[in-house]
Amino acid sequence: METTVRFGIIGIGNMGRAHALSLLEEIQGAELAAVCDLRPESLEWAGEHLPDHVLKFSHTGDLFTSGAIDAVLISTPHYDHPTLAVEAFKHGLHVLVEKPAGVYTKAVQEMNDAAAESDRIFGIMYNQRTNPLYQKLRDLIGSGELGEIRRTNWIITNWYRSQSYYDSGGWRATWAGEGGGVLLNQDPHQLDLWQWTTGMMPTRVRAFCQFGKYRKIEVEDDVTAYVEYENGATGLFVTTTGEAPGTNRFEVTGDNGKIVLEDGKLTFWRLRTPEPQFNAEYKGGFGSPECWKCEIPVESGDGGQHKGILRNFTNAILKGTPLLAPGEEGILGLTLSNAIYLSAWTDNWVELPIDADLFYEKLAEKIQRSNFQKDGTQGATLDVSGTH
Amino acid sequence: METTVRFGIIGIGNMGRAHALSLLEEIQGAELAAVCDLRPESLEWAGEHLPDHVLKFSHTGDLFTSGAIDAVLISTPHYDHPTLAVEAFKHGLHVLVEKPAGVYTKAVQEMNDAAAESDRIFGIMYNQRTNPLYQKLRDLIGSGELGEIRRTNWIITNWYRSQSYYDSGGWRATWAGEGGGVLLNQDPHQLDLWQWTTGMMPTRVRAFCQFGKYRKIEVEDDVTAYVEYENGATGLFVTTTGEAPGTNRFEVTGDNGKIVLEDGKLTFWRLRTPEPQFNAEYKGGFGSPECWKCEIPVESGDGGQHKGILRNFTNAILKGTPLLAPGEEGILGLTLSNAIYLSAWTDNWVELPIDADLFYEKLAEKIQRSNFQKDGTQGATLDVSGTH
Repeated sequence: METTVRFGIIGIGNMGRAHALSLLEEIQGAELAAVCDLRPESLEWAGEHLPDHVLKFSHTGDLFTSGAIDAVLISTPHYDHPTLAVEAFKHGLHVLVEKPAGVYTKAVQEMNDAAAESDRIFGIMYNQRTNPLYQKLRDLIGSGELGEIRRTNWIITNWYRSQSYYDSGGWRATWAGEGGGVLLNQDPHQLDLWQWTTGMMPTRVRAFCQFGKYRKIEVEDDVTAYVEYENGATGLFVTTTGEAPGTNRFEVTGDNGKIVLEDGKLTFWRLRTPEPQFNAEYKGGFGSPECWKCEIPVESGDGGQHKGILRNFTNAILKGTPLLAPGEEGILGLTLSNAIYLSAWTDNWVELPIDADLFYEKLAEKIQRSNFQKDGTQGATLDVSGTH
Repeated sequence: METTVRFGIIGIGNMGRAHALSLLEEIQGAELAAVCDLRPESLEWAGEHLPDHVLKFSHTGDLFTSGAIDAVLISTPHYDHPTLAVEAFKHGLHVLVEKPAGVYTKAVQEMNDAAAESDRIFGIMYNQRTNPLYQKLRDLIGSGELGEIRRTNWIITNWYRSQSYYDSGGWRATWAGEGGGVLLNQDPHQLDLWQWTTGMMPTRVRAFCQFGKYRKIEVEDDVTAYVEYENGATGLFVTTTGEAPGTNRFEVTGDNGKIVLEDGKLTFWRLRTPEPQFNAEYKGGFGSPECWKCEIPVESGDGGQHKGILRNFTNAILKGTPLLAPGEEGILGLTLSNAIYLSAWTDNWVELPIDADLFYEKLAEKIQRSNFQKDGTQGATLDVSGTH
C-alpha cells in the first residue's frame, strides 16, 4: 500500500505555483515530485522557489514517462485540461484537474470516459465544495429541511475585473485562448455549487449573454440565465465582471420556506407548516404560513479550500476516502455554461443534455474569428491569492 | 373657483368601501357625494355605512348625468376601468382610476385619448408612489447619484395567496373575470415603480410565465421576466403568489455603485470613483473601486398611500397641484405586464411598444376559453386593509 502520493504539477502559472508550495509541506501523505511547464519563465520560477529534488520538465511526455510521479495536478489553460487528463490516465496516473473541467463538454466527456476505463482516482479542484457555508446549504436541502425546491436565484455579480486585468494576458477572455469569459473563468465554482448544493440540474435553459459589454474583450462579461427543472422549479443565474461592488446572493425557495446565502451567512426562513399543507387547510383570505427566521450555524473557517481538496484527493488515493469533488462531476457545471452560451448564440431554448457537437461547432466558429492567436508566450502571472 | 370636489365612487367593493370612508371625512376639499354599484349587497352596505346625503346609484348612466358630482373614482373590476373613464370624461368629470389602468393597452390607450381630449384632471391610484422609500430611490436615480443604470433586479415574491383566496370570488384569477393573475392583480404597483423609480422602460422583453402552477387557477401565478433597455442595461422581474415567505428586494446597479431596497431600508453601496473612471485609470490586476456602504435616510411613515393620492388628486383639481400619478402613466406598467404575457404566450421576444392588437387578440382567445362566465354576482368582499 502506498504511503505517499508523488505529485507532478502541469502548468506552473498562477494557481500551479500556489499548489506547488502547498504540496511541498502542507499536505500529509503528499509530496511534490515534479513540475512541468513549457514557458521558460515558469521553470525559472520553479528553479528559484522549489527544492532541487523537484524535477522540472518542459514537455508533458517526459513527465508522464518519468516514473517519478503517481498523480498529476493539471493547472494549465482550460483547453488543455481534458487532453492532458486523458494522456495521464493512459500512463496510469491519478488525475486532479483544475476547474473548469474543460471548455466544451465533448472533450470533457472523453476525459470522463478515459477516467471510467482507468482504475485511477479522478478529482477536480472544486475547492468551494470544502466551504462550510455551501456544505451546510447542501445539507439543509439534501436532508429535506427545505422540502421540494421551487426556485433557485443566484445573483453572482461581484467578480469585478478591470480592463487592465484582461490586458494582462493576451489569451485572457478570448475564444481561442480561454474559451469564454465570466462563465468560464470566474463562475465555474458557482455553476458547480448551483447544482451540487441543490442536487438538481435543469432540463432546459434560456439565456442572455452580452459580449464585451463593459470591457474590450470578445467573450461575455454579462449574463442572465433562466432555467427550468424537471420538478417544475425555475432558476436564475445572473453574473458579470463589470459591476462594482456587485452582489453574491443565493436564494433557494422550497415547500418549507426559503434559504438565503449572503454576506457569509445562511438564513433559513422556515415555515412552521409546509406551504402545501397550509394551503390545503387554510380557509381565510389573505393569510400565509407562520414563518420563523432561523440563523443557521455554520462551522467557522473556509473548510480547507485548495488544500482541503489536495488532502481529500491524497486520502482518496492512500485510504480510499470518498472524493468531495469527483472529476466526473466537472462536466455538470460546464454543461450549464455550455448551455448558456448555446442559448445566447442561437437566441433560443437549449434542452439538457446539450448537443455537444453543435456546441463544439459554434465554438469552433468563434475560435476561428478570435482575436487571439495562441502562441504560448503571452501568459502573464498575477497574484491570485484569495481570488479563486 | 371650486372649493370642494364632489366625488362619486363607482364600485363599492373591497377598495371602494375604504375610499368611501376616507372621502367622508379625511380628505380636505373632497366630499363623498355619491356611490354607484350594480350589486344590491354593495348598495346595502352603502345604506348602512354611509350618510343619507350620499346618493346611491345602481347605474353609472344615472350617476354621470346626476349633476351631483365633479369627479369619479373608478374602483370596479379591471376590465371596466377604461370604458367607464371614457364615459366619465364625456360627461365632463375628473377621473381617478384604480390600478391597474385596465387589462389591455388597446383599451387604456382609448382612455388616454379621451383624457387628452378633455380638460379634466386624470389620475391613477398608484398609492405606492407616495411611499417615501420609492420616492427616495427615484430621487437617487433621477438626480444622477447612481449614475447610468446597468441592471434592475426586482424579486417580488411575497404576494402569497392561498387557494381559499382564489376561491373567494369566481371572477378572481380568470381571463374573463380579472384578465390575469399575479401580474395584473398583485403587481401593478411594482410594475409601475419599476419604471417610475428608474425612469426607464425596456425596449424588449423575454418572459416566462407558469399558469396555475401553485393554485387551481387558469392565469399565471409564477413569472420570470428578463428585459433590455435602450442604454444597454438589463433587468429582471420575478414574481409569484405561491411562495412563502417570499422576498421583496429591488436592486438597481449603476455606474456609481448599487442600491438595494429591502426590508423597508434603502442601502446605497456608493463607489468613491465612478466605475468607468476607475476602469480607465486602474493599471493593476484584481483591484476594484473603493466602495462605501451608505444607509440612506428615508422620511418615516407611509407617505399617505391611498389618502395621499386622494389629497393630491383633489388638490390638482382645486389648486392645480401637479399630479403624483397622472392617469396617462397607467399604460406604462400595463404595457410591461402585457408584454410579459405576450412573450410567454408566443415563447418569443416582444419589442416595445407592444402590438396592442395582437395582445388583445391573444387575450380574447383566453377569455373565450375561460372557466369564468361573467355574471356579476360572484364578487365576494374580503377585508383588504393593508394589502394593496
